[in-house]
Amino acid sequence: MQFTAQQISDIVNGTVEGDVGRTVSEMSKIEEGQAGSISFLANPKYENYLYTTNASIVIINEDLILKQAVKPTLIRVKNAYTAFSILLDAYNQLRADKSGIEEPSFIHPTATIGKNVYIGAFAYIGPNVRIGDHTKIYPNSYIGDSVEIGSFCTIYAGVKIYFDSIIGERVIIHAGAVIGSDGFGFAPQDDRSYKKISQIGNVLIGDDVEIGANTTIDRATLGSTKINNGVKLDNLIQLAHNVEVGKNTVVAAQTGISGSTKVGENVVLGGQVGVAGHITVANDSQVQAQSGINRSITEVGKKWAGTPAIKYTSQMRIQVTLQKLPGLEKRIEQLENLINKS
Amino acid sequence: MQFTAQQISDIVNGTVEGDVGRTVSEMSKIEEGQAGSISFLANPKYENYLYTTNASIVIINEDLILKQAVKPTLIRVKNAYTAFSILLDAYNQLRADKSGIEEPSFIHPTATIGKNVYIGAFAYIGPNVRIGDHTKIYPNSYIGDSVEIGSFCTIYAGVKIYFDSIIGERVIIHAGAVIGSDGFGFAPQDDRSYKKISQIGNVLIGDDVEIGANTTIDRATLGSTKINNGVKLDNLIQLAHNVEVGKNTVVAAQTGISGSTKVGENVVLGGQVGVAGHITVANDSQVQAQSGINRSITEVGKKWAGTPAIKYTSQMRIQVTLQKLPGLEKRIEQLENLINKS
Amino acid sequence: MQFTAQQISDIVNGTVEGDVGRTVSEMSKIEEGQAGSISFLANPKYENYLYTTNASIVIINEDLILKQAVKPTLIRVKNAYTAFSILLDAYNQLRADKSGIEEPSFIHPTATIGKNVYIGAFAYIGPNVRIGDHTKIYPNSYIGDSVEIGSFCTIYAGVKIYFDSIIGERVIIHAGAVIGSDGFGFAPQDDRSYKKISQIGNVLIGDDVEIGANTTIDRATLGSTKINNGVKLDNLIQLAHNVEVGKNTVVAAQTGISGSTKVGENVVLGGQVGVAGHITVANDSQVQAQSGINRSITEVGKKWAGTPAIKYTSQMRIQVTLQKLPGLEKRIEQLENLINKS
Repeated sequence: MQFTAQQISDIVNGTVEGDVGRTVSEMSKIEEGQAGSISFLANPKYENYLYTTNASIVIINEDLILKQAVKPTLIRVKNAYTAFSILLDAYNQLRADKSGIEEPSFIHPTATIGKNVYIGAFAYIGPNVRIGDHTKIYPNSYIGDSVEIGSFCTIYAGVKIYFDSIIGERVIIHAGAVIGSDGFGFAPQDDRSYKKISQIGNVLIGDDVEIGANTTIDRATLGSTKINNGVKLDNLIQLAHNVEVGKNTVVAAQTGISGSTKVGENVVLGGQVGVAGHITVANDSQVQAQSGINRSITEVGKKWAGTPAIKYTSQMRIQVTLQKLPGLEKRIEQLENLINKS
Repeated sequence: MQFTAQQISDIVNGTVEGDVGRTVSEMSKIEEGQAGSISFLANPKYENYLYTTNASIVIINEDLILKQAVKPTLIRVKNAYTAFSILLDAYNQLRADKSGIEEPSFIHPTATIGKNVYIGAFAYIGPNVRIGDHTKIYPNSYIGDSVEIGSFCTIYAGVKIYFDSIIGERVIIHAGAVIGSDGFGFAPQDDRSYKKISQIGNVLIGDDVEIGANTTIDRATLGSTKINNGVKLDNLIQLAHNVEVGKNTVVAAQTGISGSTKVGENVVLGGQVGVAGHITVANDSQVQAQSGINRSITEVGKKWAGTPAIKYTSQMRIQVTLQKLPGLEKRIEQLENLINKS
Repeated sequence: MQFTAQQISDIVNGTVEGDVGRTVSEMSKIEEGQAGSISFLANPKYENYLYTTNASIVIINEDLILKQAVKPTLIRVKNAYTAFSILLDAYNQLRADKSGIEEPSFIHPTATIGKNVYIGAFAYIGPNVRIGDHTKIYPNSYIGDSVEIGSFCTIYAGVKIYFDSIIGERVIIHAGAVIGSDGFGFAPQDDRSYKKISQIGNVLIGDDVEIGANTTIDRATLGSTKINNGVKLDNLIQLAHNVEVGKNTVVAAQTGISGSTKVGENVVLGGQVGVAGHITVANDSQVQAQSGINRSITEVGKKWAGTPAIKYTSQMRIQVTLQKLPGLEKRIEQLENLINKS
């Protein structure tokens, strides 16, 4: 689809400078702008690109004073970044504008389906499932018995949600994620084999949660594994049985949290972090990528690093000294030689 | 469904103390017990909860002497933990009681399907597949050509099993797991590209194995990747081509084992462990989370930690000294200053 | 299927020594050879197995001088390894010889499908998709709107490809991989919640790329996440938004690359490596398993290890000294005692 500078300016409440009829059909970074694309300039660091870009239209802040002539048509707005992200959202909504029920799909007669939903082909909606209004279930996804999914959710292709999971409003779950698989619980037997402990709890996911591709969240043994409102989980994350993740906490890719651990609110866990079981991580903690947290963090709002994780600044000091370690050994030897000689 | 105290007592062979007609419909931890739930007390550490819980029924050991009056109806049994886990299993079996063939599904005419199986909608059963009695294949799963699956197995939604894989009895494979993908084998060419080496082996999985969600197990280049009886694999684990995992070994989430490595029996690998290729790990080894094993472990029954992994106690000693490393450097400087002055 | 020694010799352009009519039906390693299997001997280290193997046929180099009598029929060729890998490829092609469109599948009327393709049951081909000639789309896979897939590709079962992704020729994508999921981008809000930033870029995958099972590749925020020609990715890898991976680079399992990072050509990343965002990794770099790269590598062709990654040899020296660290502390104490006494 093509849009004119004037049409876009109307959407973002701006003023056109240049050819109001110039058209674009895609969005780009200013440094990669091509004819037919619209871009934006918010960070003054990138101003030079404004004079060299091939983008057809650029959105800029209304107070920007041009240093030289520019080729693109300009749209001036209060905040170029905000205006551009409004366009991104509009474009995104156009792209993802799916609705209706594709065939063949499987919808159990006992399931309750809201208004204006999308259910893709080969999606499976099990017995007693409830799906809220305006929710999209992409193809090849599996919604197990008695699962509840709120309104305005997007469940992408090939997501698997086990029985009894409960999912809030405006939740996005990316392709291949698994919600509600059995917790990893086994009782050791006398013959050294393990007997499975039945996992009959469930998974509770709050509102405005986003869950990345191929991430796995195990159901609780008893009770619930809880992902609170506003949590953002990246791809390939593992959350074990009975874990709780606090409001607005962000977890980067490939991190794992072991069973029964409670992570606080507004925490940021970097990628490939490991968190031991049965501990707590205080609110506002920040944990560097690849760290290993092996005991509870009780101080609020600190930065942690390393395996086992200690305060970030202490870890940095150790890492700097580590680089000198072979040298330190030599200095000790020299001291010993000096002392022995004396 | 609701059950009375008397009905439950009959199942677990116990004695009711209190209202035999009191009903429950769910199971809970004693500290989270609500009206309508049944709980248990096995660990004396939690005895206080017995006097405060809102659970309607609590299962306790027959020899427990009450310190004060209790609100819930009690069921006394020989071993409260065992009795409760019998209930868990019974509940679990009720939940997972699927059978029959849902439509549409794809069952190749050359496939052999056992008695009393469940095949969910959109499941794909390829040519020459054999599926044992009482096995459940959940929706959207893919069973490739000539795969054999034993009796009493559960293959959850969206599992993908490549051709020629052989799976034993009572195996559980969680959603999204991939069995039999190609090993990662390439021959470097003169132009610096890589030529794929065809991977024509298979995957052999023994009896009573459990495989976690989104775990991947590659087929052998030649021969078999082998997962022996009783092995338990958590979520998001990677097992490369020609790996062998010994009987009753347990592997926690996000661990990876490289090509042709043999892990012994009764080994415990923590989460996010990495094991190099072409090595062996002795029976009864225990490896701490996030460790990296880069050469064979030949001593049986030891505990290992760190990257590269060394004995756990040595690693702990190093970690303690590491915390003092910046201080050690200063002490060396002071010694040098003293010596130089003298 | 069975083949005679003569038939195989004709395929690999060899000379039979022994019974030309002897038949085999499978391929094996020489140390695991059984009656009915064919094997090969290329590495002189394994020559002893030639005299003990139970394989029915063994392919050997034409210049090999036998040290004693052998049981198997021999096929002599210029290069036994090459000959065997030709057989592997032939066998592999027989196995994977799928074609036609299985029902039920979902092919949107606006999709363009090439000649001689395989589309498995429950595969979903969305609007405006283009699929090249001789490409195989296995069951339960999802090809989103406007995706382009070149010729001679193999998309295994349960792969999920989001809209607008573009995939080259001869690409292999293993089961459960996700291509084009949203980048992990959120703008922090005043109330400490996060607002999603729409991700409208795409994923570009070159020719001759292989992507492992359950690996995830996020779409770009704007522009493209780029996987260049000849790249080989193992299982459970995470590539974030706007990452670029250079030609013929190889990445082992469970490695993660953060947003906007550019990895050069002919790089080798070991397993479980983490690479920070917004950095570059120079051509021909080699990075040891479990390393963490937290800043740009600008030197070409070096070996790196550790977290944070430093030169491999420096890291090895540090690791050796680390083992002595508790001892070093004691030596410092002794020195201090000596000095204080003196």
